[in-house]
Amino acid sequence: MNVLIVYWHPEPNSFNGAMFHRAIESFETAGHEVKTSDLHEMNFNPVSGRHNFSDVNDAEFFKQQLEEMHASETGTFSSEIEAEIQKLEWSDLVIFQFPLWWFGMPAMLKGWVDRVFAMGRVYGGGRFYENGVFKGKKAMLSVTMGGPQDLYVKDGWNGDLDAILRPIHRGVFEFTGFSVLEPQKVFGPARMSQEERSDELERYGQRLAAIFDESPIDVGHY
Amino acid sequence: MNVLIVYWHPEPNSFNGAMFHRAIESFETAGHEVKTSDLHEMNFNPVSGRHNFSDVNDAEFFKQQLEEMHASETGTFSSEIEAEIQKLEWSDLVIFQFPLWWFGMPAMLKGWVDRVFAMGRVYGGGRFYENGVFKGKKAMLSVTMGGPQDLYVKDGWNGDLDAILRPIHRGVFEFTGFSVLEPQKVFGPARMSQEERSDELERYGQRLAAIFDESPIDVGHY
Repeated sequence: MNVLIVYWHPEPNSFNGAMFHRAIESFETAGHEVKTSDLHEMNFNPVSGRHNFSDVNDAEFFKQQLEEMHASETGTFSSEIEAEIQKLEWSDLVIFQFPLWWFGMPAMLKGWVDRVFAMGRVYGGGRFYENGVFKGKKAMLSVTMGGPQDLYVKDGWNGDLDAILRPIHRGVFEFTGFSVLEPQKVFGPARMSQEERSDELERYGQRLAAIFDESPIDVGHY
Repeated sequence: MNVLIVYWHPEPNSFNGAMFHRAIESFETAGHEVKTSDLHEMNFNPVSGRHNFSDVNDAEFFKQQLEEMHASETGTFSSEIEAEIQKLEWSDLVIFQFPLWWFGMPAMLKGWVDRVFAMGRVYGGGRFYENGVFKGKKAMLSVTMGGPQDLYVKDGWNGDLDAILRPIHRGVFEFTGFSVLEPQKVFGPARMSQEERSDELERYGQRLAAIFDESPIDVGHY
């Protein structure tokens, strides 16, 4: 199978970086093909604008979705965006590897979504949710939390982590047709011993070795 | 009162831009002080890294929160970040004006939060939620949705908009002590007539004229 891992952390030697590399290793060992978008390494620009495109639809008023429709029709996404869209199209499974910041994706990863999930190519024209462009593909979040698990429960300080992740599960993945796999969650890796971190990596690697057997989750009703 | 409006849209002539300018006008007419962070105009960099700081705590391993603690103790945030933190500290009310993209803040605005809400100055040391640094201040989202309102209801296609906004309400605002005011929501401004858009702006301006009389909302339990 074809796996795309999109990853951001500002410190390459972070636990997130270790999760990213463990995933690559696990998939390659199992005989899958892996492509990556290591956004820190790529120095990806997360800000949307006319630089998303190599052509102009409306020079007077910038409405991103209309420019995206034009670029989809004329093949005029910037080479940077075109390359990322092609990785999505190529993949059977997409993983986002990131630290949860302020109950969401860090800006770099959010901006990758903002720019790459383009109307015309990735959704639009009635193609969303159950008729989404990426129907048949799977997607998964692999996320680290700074705080302990007991903060992330219903009526806990932060609330249920699944509710916090639902805007990504529903609004990004399911909206574009992906089936969502159970997120991989690691709480407080900075406070773990080296052995505990190794155990987490091992647990992740073992899960990934059989991940194509997993069934999608229900992302919740709100 | 002191009002900070943080705004991003890639098109200055957008409806979001009109909401931003109407808010400034309404507050100034009412005799309040207004500061702004027009992130597109500022060409703000939303990516976190060592450029957040003018000094280094740990040159070997970049952990943002530890660098933020160091910068808080030594007064060594970059001038760009220091200026934004001071605006937050100065404000009685903070408004985020933005289009909802992929069920969340666009990368530019998310990155403003990622970089400016710094441990040590804005939270930390037991100062969060009910003991948050910004206790006594108010915060509000003013947000536009591309789709119609009937998509954003419980068990609708997207689900309840309040659940979608909760990660910002709870994870950003309440976490740092802000009381949350009812969000200002505009659905599908691109499909409105000029008169309907004017009515929305008028409705917003009238609300803001009396906003300091409003009571905080319950951001929901999940």
